[in-house]
Amino acid sequence: MIVGNLPTETDTMIVEIADFKVRPEQRAAFLQAITGAATAYLAKSEGYRGHRILACQESPGRVVLTVEWATLEAHTVGFRQSPAFAEWRAVIGPFFVDPPHVEHFDVTVTG
Amino acid sequence: MIVGNLPTETDTMIVEIADFKVRPEQRAAFLQAITGAATAYLAKSEGYRGHRILACQESPGRVVLTVEWATLEAHTVGFRQSPAFAEWRAVIGPFFVDPPHVEHFDVTVTG
Repeated sequence: MIVGNLPTETDTMIVEIADFKVRPEQRAAFLQAITGAATAYLAKSEGYRGHRILACQESPGRVVLTVEWATLEAHTVGFRQSPAFAEWRAVIGPFFVDPPHVEHFDVTVTG
Repeated sequence: MIVGNLPTETDTMIVEIADFKVRPEQRAAFLQAITGAATAYLAKSEGYRGHRILACQESPGRVVLTVEWATLEAHTVGFRQSPAFAEWRAVIGPFFVDPPHVEHFDVTVTG
């Protein structure tokens, strides 16, 4: 672990893409909830590098969260096995219509 | 249109997420093809602000392309109705196992 090193674009190793489906009439409330929870829980996790919350234009119940992590394990172990993850899911989980679809990606090109 | 203004993060209005499925054994060739085509065609389109090509760790045939556009129409009209789009699809289309899934998103939070 490097202590005191500022995060930079080149630190990014992994992008998580999480696809959420909520009821369209609840999407505004969901966006507010996940925005607050991301700041409170996600962004404080070790290895977190940044995130975006994206609201789909074509599918009114679709929200995509992208998270940049230093490593895969920063997400799958560091965050998911932390007490903060239970808090995070308690806030956003009640909005889900389907289980979220979550996968991890290597960035092959940034242009 | 503002001429001579450098693109900045705050210019970004829309994110396109394109989800591609190719045969796993052809993914390396697809990544090479789409990387070249993105530079040759996509990145030269009016209103283009940046892109990323992401290779999925869990699903070996999945590739996600994210593109930042100044406006929705920069993609749906400016790029898709240009001669460059036909070239772009001629390069990447032969790899598709399924039709690509493409939607557009408003960025509600960047953290």
